[in-house]
Amino acid sequence: MSAHFQDWMKSTQQQFEVLLASFLPSTDAIPAKLHEAMRYAALDGGKRVRPLLVYAAGFMFNAPADLLARAAAALEMIHAYSLVHDDMPCMDDDALRRGKPTVHVKYDEATALLVGDALQAQAFLVLAEAQSESSRQVAMLRLLAQAAGSTGMCGGQAIDLASVGVALTVGQLEQMHRLKTGALLRASVIMGAMCGKTLSAAEVAALDAYASAIGLAFQVVDDVLDATADSATLGKTAGKDAADNKPTYVSLLGLEASQALAKKLCDDAHAALLPFGEKAHILRNLADLIVQRKA
Amino acid sequence: MSAHFQDWMKSTQQQFEVLLASFLPSTDAIPAKLHEAMRYAALDGGKRVRPLLVYAAGFMFNAPADLLARAAAALEMIHAYSLVHDDMPCMDDDALRRGKPTVHVKYDEATALLVGDALQAQAFLVLAEAQSESSRQVAMLRLLAQAAGSTGMCGGQAIDLASVGVALTVGQLEQMHRLKTGALLRASVIMGAMCGKTLSAAEVAALDAYASAIGLAFQVVDDVLDATADSATLGKTAGKDAADNKPTYVSLLGLEASQALAKKLCDDAHAALLPFGEKAHILRNLADLIVQRKA
Repeated sequence: MSAHFQDWMKSTQQQFEVLLASFLPSTDAIPAKLHEAMRYAALDGGKRVRPLLVYAAGFMFNAPADLLARAAAALEMIHAYSLVHDDMPCMDDDALRRGKPTVHVKYDEATALLVGDALQAQAFLVLAEAQSESSRQVAMLRLLAQAAGSTGMCGGQAIDLASVGVALTVGQLEQMHRLKTGALLRASVIMGAMCGKTLSAAEVAALDAYASAIGLAFQVVDDVLDATADSATLGKTAGKDAADNKPTYVSLLGLEASQALAKKLCDDAHAALLPFGEKAHILRNLADLIVQRKA
Repeated sequence: MSAHFQDWMKSTQQQFEVLLASFLPSTDAIPAKLHEAMRYAALDGGKRVRPLLVYAAGFMFNAPADLLARAAAALEMIHAYSLVHDDMPCMDDDALRRGKPTVHVKYDEATALLVGDALQAQAFLVLAEAQSESSRQVAMLRLLAQAAGSTGMCGGQAIDLASVGVALTVGQLEQMHRLKTGALLRASVIMGAMCGKTLSAAEVAALDAYASAIGLAFQVVDDVLDATADSATLGKTAGKDAADNKPTYVSLLGLEASQALAKKLCDDAHAALLPFGEKAHILRNLADLIVQRKA
């Protein structure tokens, strides 16, 4: 990865953090405690993979900054809410997230439930409040709702829940991840590009292929890291999937084959970007980053 | 209430039930169990107050049927999701809703959490998938997100949580309800009217006054019923607020003054509708219904 890409990433993350803070309700507004907890859940943490994908895809088509920021914030709020709910005792029961106590540990379960619910509504609000061409905005809101809902992220979590202790095939594991994390990553790439132009079917298909490949690669690498890294490096409890008897790529394929699969998916992602030529270089770098990350 | 209004209400409820079913994901689609639980939570129950308000307000401005149905379904899905989450052990811990076991009792807590999350996304999806004028659609999506979020329904629930065992004034109780249930009732009236036309500021103000009055009346009557009716009639656990040490209008004002307040709010609602003349007769009847209901 070039120093230029590293700089782009760092400055994008920093700018996004400021923008995200501005799109969250203020702690001066009632109810202050709920707003404080929403900000605790969403700010100051995470790699901001979804916002980076939004900006990288938008970069290809000279997308306007305000719409990009709103799309990125909306996607990150959906992601943040899903983590808050996923960490709750009735789901994964996790006490540590991004190196900090999870929301239900820091506050309480009822607050965690409401923080997630309110962050989801806030995601749609931020996007619906954009000053943009209305038909484009409706299309983006539709895509966000699909990606977040029962045939997207929530559906993937339901399949994940049902698969604890069940012997899944690699195909079934892939389908689960395609919904659970893939749907939102795909929405990030497509929505980012849509901020800049109305996409042709061929462009959507190419971006879909890229997003599918990095989405799976992301999960394969997650499983590899869960099996090999420690909690301090990850900022969350390591070895949790194995302890919870959840199927992973490492448990199904072994460590070496999982690493090879991540490499192959990265190559697939690069191949999918060929039609976009040089202007896709940030998306290419992001694919490399996802596969080479250490946490 | 006239026989004509009773007929309108019954046929609107019946038609809405069919439409709502069509807007929920099919149990043939993966994940089937999540979709089954979403349908269990949303279908076959409730008075459908929000959809009735949408249709009654839309009636005044000849709103198109498909957009009305989508607005009504979206609002009912937000309402249904809030009940599912509100009934969970970390919130009100209620086992009975609309005469049936609550979702976390019938399924499990994790499923209840996901059902609520997915119903919220589905609400935005149903509205975003309408074939309508895009700018109107964006305005409606914005209103829905505001009403559902941290300065609307979720905010009201956060205030409600914080007020258990706390001595509230009538003013504070009113503010809580204005968010917790009022925001969604207000959105129902305004969105229903918006389906038919772009509203003037005066029209919004008049509909707001109507919605505020019936929203509070609804809550006052809820408190009266909670103190006077039995669980079988209510289809939920009676006397729960008092047992949970939650402030209510009855505990603050007494039974008689609460009943008088409900009557006054109903009069306020009628007065707010005067500018709309005869075509507001269904909204007028709905105000009467809310105050005179027995469950």
